[in-house]
Order: sequence, then structure tokens, then C-alpha cells
Amino acid sequence: MDLRIILVEPLYQGNVGSVTRAMKNFGFSDLVLVNPCKLEGEARAMSSHARDLLENAKIVSSLEEAIDGCSIIIGTTGITGSRFDLHLRVPGYSPGEMKERLNGISGRVAVLFGREDNGFTKEELKRCDMIMTIPTSGVYPVMNLSHAVAVVLYEFSSIVMGDTPLADPFDIGLLYEHLSELLDDIDYPDHKKEKTELMLRRIFGRACLLPREVQTLRGIIRKVQRTYESEAEQDDYANEYDD
Amino acid sequence: MDLRIILVEPLYQGNVGSVTRAMKNFGFSDLVLVNPCKLEGEARAMSSHARDLLENAKIVSSLEEAIDGCSIIIGTTGITGSRFDLHLRVPGYSPGEMKERLNGISGRVAVLFGREDNGFTKEELKRCDMIMTIPTSGVYPVMNLSHAVAVVLYEFSSIVMGDTPLADPFDIGLLYEHLSELLDDIDYPDHKKEKTELMLRRIFGRACLLPREVQTLRGIIRKVQRTYESEAEQDDYANEYDD
Repeated sequence: MDLRIILVEPLYQGNVGSVTRAMKNFGFSDLVLVNPCKLEGEARAMSSHARDLLENAKIVSSLEEAIDGCSIIIGTTGITGSRFDLHLRVPGYSPGEMKERLNGISGRVAVLFGREDNGFTKEELKRCDMIMTIPTSGVYPVMNLSHAVAVVLYEFSSIVMGDTPLADPFDIGLLYEHLSELLDDIDYPDHKKEKTELMLRRIFGRACLLPREVQTLRGIIRKVQRTYESEAEQDDYANEYDD
Repeated sequence: MDLRIILVEPLYQGNVGSVTRAMKNFGFSDLVLVNPCKLEGEARAMSSHARDLLENAKIVSSLEEAIDGCSIIIGTTGITGSRFDLHLRVPGYSPGEMKERLNGISGRVAVLFGREDNGFTKEELKRCDMIMTIPTSGVYPVMNLSHAVAVVLYEFSSIVMGDTPLADPFDIGLLYEHLSELLDDIDYPDHKKEKTELMLRRIFGRACLLPREVQTLRGIIRKVQRTYESEAEQDDYANEYDD
């Protein structure tokens, strides 16, 4: 499986080291760190025989750089959705459910883990196609970062990739821009637009779109826009004579 | 699920603290430590909000005390069986396979984790009814202790216990003694006896015997012994006249 682990602004170097060990235990090696803490002796000690992963980890300064080239972006969060951020954190798939979704596809999958104290920002969550939540006890749901990585990798290590190629991330980006344009065209209420865009991203994100599907969806939107435009022109024409 | 986690002679207090955190994350609280290292500030720091579990952990000086009252003893090991210790470490079930075996039963299950450096002794492995191995990469199979606990508890937290009571551990112990006696009765070769006893323990261990099954098995052995004895007596009688 072509899996990238991304740690967003990890605070404790021991955790980063532990994450590399868990990754090597389950046969993964692509690690990207967004603005990490200093990585010194403790990180090396905790990485144990996975020091090569620690040394080869890519360090970047933005989430956009980290997810470059990834077809699916999965955010891992311990906090489940409330009615206040309905589309931000739901649906939250368990690692087992996520495995079922990823079985049989091909393409690079990014799994994001947030800061040890504050998790993800709202903007970071919005960037995710799907949200994953490890089912934990309500009494103490907050897992150690490296434990969460170990559990996810344990589950994902048995994923069988197939030969169904996912849509290109660039094309998916164009689809989202196109959808946003459409919402503007139909004068969708501004105060609802952000949530609706996020809902659309969640729907298409968990659908793991194929290249042809993205093209067809964009074709439909284009046709809707044209129809709308020509009707608008006719309306304008009609209006001229009505005046 | 009535689950007891047993750490056998853990060497690093940070790991013990991390284990308590993972236990509380997944809703478990019964922790027994066999001759642990000193548990001080680092153990408390790593336990985070699970300090109550750390403080309530039972400390004992032998494995026998630790498993007291447990119906099934599962040993977790990263090393899979070779032909040299065939019955000692095989079959090694994955946590997922073990979950399937435990679904629906009732009784206390003990999961053992060995020393960070040397795992279990041969005698400790022999005491286990079943062996569990987390599937890891051949390149670096040795997991951090608390990662292994987190993965097992993640899997076991979805076990649905049923109302099928397991046989009493005391009665199962009598069955094994009885089987050993039988092997002596039939002059089973001494050099094979240990391995065969272990194989029998692995077979009956993974069968998760019910109370009536243990009684029936012991009844069969008793009947075999009586038949053997009476034939032996007849042989002696016949021998007297043959001389």
C-alpha cells in the first residue's frame, strides 16, 4: 500500500521517534512532518531500529506541501462530530471501516495526525477527504499519538491494494472549484456555502472517485451552467421586451 | 469483557505508564505486574490521565499469582514458531483471529506481555493456553511494549462476551495432570513427553473447553486407565502361569 503518514506540528520528539518505530514495524516508510518540534536524542532513542525513517522524514512548512501527490487525505481525530461541526468531523470511520473503503483501490493515501494538545485546526480538517476516529472509551478517549499511529497501521497493513486508479488530486481540486462556482451561479446563500462545500467534499471524498467519474461530474456541472446561462440570457431578452 | 493485562518483568517504567494509558483509552483496568521495574515519575508522566490504573496495578512475584482466577491464558509474542519450538509458539493467532475465538464466551481472559528485551522464558510460554502474534514486517518485527498492548486492546475492545461459561481453571489443571499421568501409564517415551504435553495444552487451550467437556474428557481418561490396569492385571496373572 502506498501510504504516507503526516504528523501536523508534533510537539514531543519522543512521540515522533515512536511513530517511526511503529511505521517500520508495519512496513511503512513515507513520513512527512509539518513544522515539527526539535528532533534530537530522545527522538532517536524512541525510534530504536527505525532511525533511518527518522533521518529520512521529509520536513515541510505547510499541509499543502505535505499532501502533494496524495489522492486521498484522511484526518485522524479523537473527537467525534457534534452538531456544531457536523460536516467537519462526520462521518468518522473506524480504522476497520476505512480499511474496507481503501481495499482494492490504487493511489497514494495520506493519513494525518494532529497536534498532541489541540489536534487539527478547522482549516486542516476541511482539507481532509475523510475523517477517521479510533473507537475509544468515553472516560478517557485521548490516545497517545504513537499509539494511535500503531493502531491505524496495524489495521492498514492488511489492506490489499488493487488496480483501480483513483482520480488525479489535481482534477478533484478542479471539481471542487467547479462546484463552488456552481453554488455562486445559483446564488446559494453565503452563510450556508462553506458548510455545503464541506459536505460535498465529505461525500465525494468517501466515494473515492475514479478519473472518469470526475470528468462526468464536471461535464454535468458544465451542462447545468450552460443551461442556466442560456436561460438567463433568454430571461434578459424577454425582460427587454417586457419593459 | 473481563480482561486482565499481565506484564511479565517489564524493564522500563515509561512503558508501564504508557500501557495504563492505552488500557484506559480502551476501557480496561485490570493490570497485574510480575516483578516490575521501579515505578516513579516517568511511569506517572506516561500514564497521563490513567494514573489511577498505575496506582491500582497489582504487583506480584510470580506468574502463577498473576494468572490466578483466569480461565484462558494468552501469551503475546513477536517471535513466531520455528521447527525447534514447534508447540511452544504455534499456532500464533493474530489479534483479529483471537477476537473471533473469544467472541461469545464468558470468563476472565489473561493476556501476557513479556520482557522488552527477552520476551518470555520457555516455562512461561508453556503456561499459556494460546499464543498471539501481531503481524509485523520481517524487516523490524519487534514492537514497543505499549504499542503492542494498544493494538491488542483496540482489537479486543470490540469483543462481545456471551454467556457460555468456560471450564474452571482448576479443573483444566486437573485434566492436564490426568493426561500426564496417562502418558506415564502407557510408557510414553520420556524425550517426547514434554513436547506432547505442550501440544495437548495448545489443542485444548485453543478449544476454550466448557465445564462439561472437561469432565467428559477426564471420564474417558479414567476409563482408559481402568481398562489398561485391568488388562495389565490379567497379563500379570497370565504371566504367573506361563512361567
